[in-house]
Amino acid sequence: MPSDALTKEFQAIVGKENVLESEADRHSYSYDSAVLDPVVPELAVRPTTSEELGKVVRLCNQHGLPLTPRGSGTNLSGGTIPAQGGIVLLTNALNKIVEINEEDLYAVVQPGVVTATFANEVAKRGLFYPPDPGSQAVSTLGGNVAENAGGLRGLKYGVTKDYVMGVDFFDVNGELVKSGSRTVKCVTGLNLSALQVASEGTMGVFNEIILKLVPPPAANKAMMAIFDDIDKASETVASIIAHHIVPCTLELLDNATINYVEDFTKAGLPTSAQAILLIEVDGHAAQVAEEAEKVVELCKKAGAVEVKAAKDEAERNKLWEARRAALPALARAKPTTVLEDATVPRSQIPAMIRAINEIGKKYRLDIGTFGHAGDGNLHPTILCDKRDKEEFHRVEEAVDEIFDVALSLKGTLSGEHGIGLAKSKWLEKETSPATIAYAKALKAAIDPKGILNPGKIIGG
Amino acid sequence: MPSDALTKEFQAIVGKENVLESEADRHSYSYDSAVLDPVVPELAVRPTTSEELGKVVRLCNQHGLPLTPRGSGTNLSGGTIPAQGGIVLLTNALNKIVEINEEDLYAVVQPGVVTATFANEVAKRGLFYPPDPGSQAVSTLGGNVAENAGGLRGLKYGVTKDYVMGVDFFDVNGELVKSGSRTVKCVTGLNLSALQVASEGTMGVFNEIILKLVPPPAANKAMMAIFDDIDKASETVASIIAHHIVPCTLELLDNATINYVEDFTKAGLPTSAQAILLIEVDGHAAQVAEEAEKVVELCKKAGAVEVKAAKDEAERNKLWEARRAALPALARAKPTTVLEDATVPRSQIPAMIRAINEIGKKYRLDIGTFGHAGDGNLHPTILCDKRDKEEFHRVEEAVDEIFDVALSLKGTLSGEHGIGLAKSKWLEKETSPATIAYAKALKAAIDPKGILNPGKIIGG
Repeated sequence: MPSDALTKEFQAIVGKENVLESEADRHSYSYDSAVLDPVVPELAVRPTTSEELGKVVRLCNQHGLPLTPRGSGTNLSGGTIPAQGGIVLLTNALNKIVEINEEDLYAVVQPGVVTATFANEVAKRGLFYPPDPGSQAVSTLGGNVAENAGGLRGLKYGVTKDYVMGVDFFDVNGELVKSGSRTVKCVTGLNLSALQVASEGTMGVFNEIILKLVPPPAANKAMMAIFDDIDKASETVASIIAHHIVPCTLELLDNATINYVEDFTKAGLPTSAQAILLIEVDGHAAQVAEEAEKVVELCKKAGAVEVKAAKDEAERNKLWEARRAALPALARAKPTTVLEDATVPRSQIPAMIRAINEIGKKYRLDIGTFGHAGDGNLHPTILCDKRDKEEFHRVEEAVDEIFDVALSLKGTLSGEHGIGLAKSKWLEKETSPATIAYAKALKAAIDPKGILNPGKIIGG
Repeated sequence: MPSDALTKEFQAIVGKENVLESEADRHSYSYDSAVLDPVVPELAVRPTTSEELGKVVRLCNQHGLPLTPRGSGTNLSGGTIPAQGGIVLLTNALNKIVEINEEDLYAVVQPGVVTATFANEVAKRGLFYPPDPGSQAVSTLGGNVAENAGGLRGLKYGVTKDYVMGVDFFDVNGELVKSGSRTVKCVTGLNLSALQVASEGTMGVFNEIILKLVPPPAANKAMMAIFDDIDKASETVASIIAHHIVPCTLELLDNATINYVEDFTKAGLPTSAQAILLIEVDGHAAQVAEEAEKVVELCKKAGAVEVKAAKDEAERNKLWEARRAALPALARAKPTTVLEDATVPRSQIPAMIRAINEIGKKYRLDIGTFGHAGDGNLHPTILCDKRDKEEFHRVEEAVDEIFDVALSLKGTLSGEHGIGLAKSKWLEKETSPATIAYAKALKAAIDPKGILNPGKIIGG
């Protein structure tokens, strides 16, 4: 804990009720959704206005006290673990939707707005905010921007970065930096808002975010294709894209995942299938009808045993609930869930899946694989028990090999989960020493005392 | 000119034929398309391989010699004027399309590839690269990324930044920095490739660029709506978007521009019209038919005198040739063409156009206004003669006022032309002192000697 004097300074800014110093509170903010050891912060501080937020940042810098901004702590790479102590900066009281501009198709939000709450408010006005990370029911938009959160619709609609038009953020001195605009086009100054995206809170503390909105698709059609061979399923993914159909969602569940989900949800999934693809096309009704027909044809041509189309919204929801249940279903099987995120160009999905299965056999591990096959972003999920040191060593070796394969297929370490603490040691392997040096130079320049979420991405 | 010894060092890297030292050559690279005074470089150096490029950068840094990367010099804000001397680094020999990946919908290019050449190669493979800056016939992709070039399709398809998946660039030491990926999703490390976008060559020297491709639209329909009142035209723009129709292109030409274009092209434009809108919708054929019908209805409802639809590809081309002729037609009218770029949220187009016309009257200036009305990005074009100092003073005052109005309407200084030398003095007005300080700190950190296109964007 920081000195009483310092605690009092935070209290003077945000009020006594917004400085959380009890053991229980501090433990609540010591971990996130990554499989990493917790680190207890000295305090958790919850500003309720922009002005308070700026003052808290300034105070931290004055005292050289690290600050770790935290939305809902759903990130999977340790980005919100206060690795070097200091305070956790809670953004959940900064949760105003400042503006939804229906004429100009943008919104302005504070960082603590919950993703699903925002998407619903936007939908009420007949508009659409596409990014839909798995944690959207609780995740915050600030967290989504900090991690460049992806989701199921990335294939057609892109990810969070594709919707960030601007970010106003506090620099380390608590001064407001403005970048981006309410206009579709803006090239005024360095692209500082884009630098905030995926920066995991290391380059500034978000004050307000300008997000792009789009008109919603007029129609959609969801389908499930069942395969007795996972190769056929993954080849179907490549075939759909090669035929210039870009589904809004194109997800794969392997046999292990199907069975865990079915155990959990009793949704009636085909448990003997080696893989299923869940596919949704959207857009104009005529286009949807044609693309759905073509998708069915391509699935069958590639050897699908059966293709079922959702007949109504209820059936459609059932399909997507099954997909959304994948992670919780796998997670309840064993004490520890290592959810990986290595991503490859779409055409390499068949090779990646074969490699994951071989690695699973080699290290005698229980791996369920599911994910956004359409954008090459799979989530091989290793079910294990971290307390079993011998087993966990095999897990770590398997993860190493999964990354090596992804890179050899011209892929990347992380499609959407971030680098955080969990993956920074692999960063140089994908990039170069000069890349790390460049990033470190930027970081040191704008945060010389190293107080903005130190230790994340580039280590240090 | 640099010393003979230094010239010899450049010659040793790129060969004698690629170090241009004659007076005529050096003058060729002293200016770009902005209305600014030329600055003659000491040399122009043209690397032909990545390796040479890296070595040239390193040599410049060793000698503290400024380098200004130059594609085709079409930028409109002085970004390629070698303001602080040194060398101009020509990228036009680095013009290989390294890869067009049809399965995974991306391409890898060197920076000197000409935009239209690339778009055509992509189209031959049945794919689509949407960004279409006005200068695409000669502009380079490296220049497009450096300036975040826009174009006519920005409204629906976005601008260059929306297609940059990765940039490998040389840091100031000539070491290769890698950022981004061939995958749709990538959150590996700081978003350094996005920081290169719109950086005007101040943050690194591009080696290879990974660009996203998309399937082309199946159908399109181009229309011209004629108005006897510019207010009605600009209100139609807002009305189309408000009805959730997002045309791929939605352009406006005012009466002055129409007449200059007609004089130039004899295309048969309605010279008595106060404004015309050129509108194209694209996508699935059924959607195109419906949207085109709705657009016609909305134009008429807003008071269009007439709406003509292009009956075939030839008629469509004629419409777009008229639009593409706007700038050359205006530019030949007077010795100096000041092409502005202030951009506002789309719904503010009517207010912006009214303000531009009032400013034109107030300062007794001949202004033709045309541009991408659909994304709020107008190009008020002041026809003048820079040698007439009294008139040019009025031009400068008018430009100041145009920027003030754009900012008061929550717009931005520049939608797509960049800041360069021309607009850096206004940057703080839109942002904040902390924004400039933040950008300067980043720049100083990765380029301590200030050799990477110094003086651009943030001044200095």
